[in-house]
Amino acid sequence: MPRVVVDVMLKPEILDPQGQAVANALPRLGVSDVSSVRIGRRIEIEFAGEPDLDRAREIADKLLANPVIEDFAIRVVDAEDEHP
Amino acid sequence: MPRVVVDVMLKPEILDPQGQAVANALPRLGVSDVSSVRIGRRIEIEFAGEPDLDRAREIADKLLANPVIEDFAIRVVDAEDEHP
Repeated sequence: MPRVVVDVMLKPEILDPQGQAVANALPRLGVSDVSSVRIGRRIEIEFAGEPDLDRAREIADKLLANPVIEDFAIRVVDAEDEHP
Repeated sequence: MPRVVVDVMLKPEILDPQGQAVANALPRLGVSDVSSVRIGRRIEIEFAGEPDLDRAREIADKLLANPVIEDFAIRVVDAEDEHP
């Protein structure tokens, strides 16, 4: 069953302390070639019927993202693709 | 510049109260055809040079995901593609 994936990330100009904390911890793991880490949210929405992108956009806009500090992108993925 | 994206989601058998809260709020928005909402994390890692998937996997395994309750998937995306 295809699902709609909403990716929510802080806008590039907004500081991301959580990502920064991870980036700062990397040298202790012996990793020195990472220039930036940004942490956002991935939301998977499953519809009872066909995936509805417009509906998903409305949900993202009203419930999932804060448009003042965050951007979001919406796409349909097959259940097998890119599922963790 | 391509970046590595790590998607971290709770394993399917683990309850997701945050996603459940969103799903429960949807009828108040007039949305009744959503069967499930799951909320995870999306981490974008930028490398100083070429993206290094093995390195990213090591970072995800040690820092970003809790393998007891979470699964993760790693992929390289172009900066323009699917960026919120």
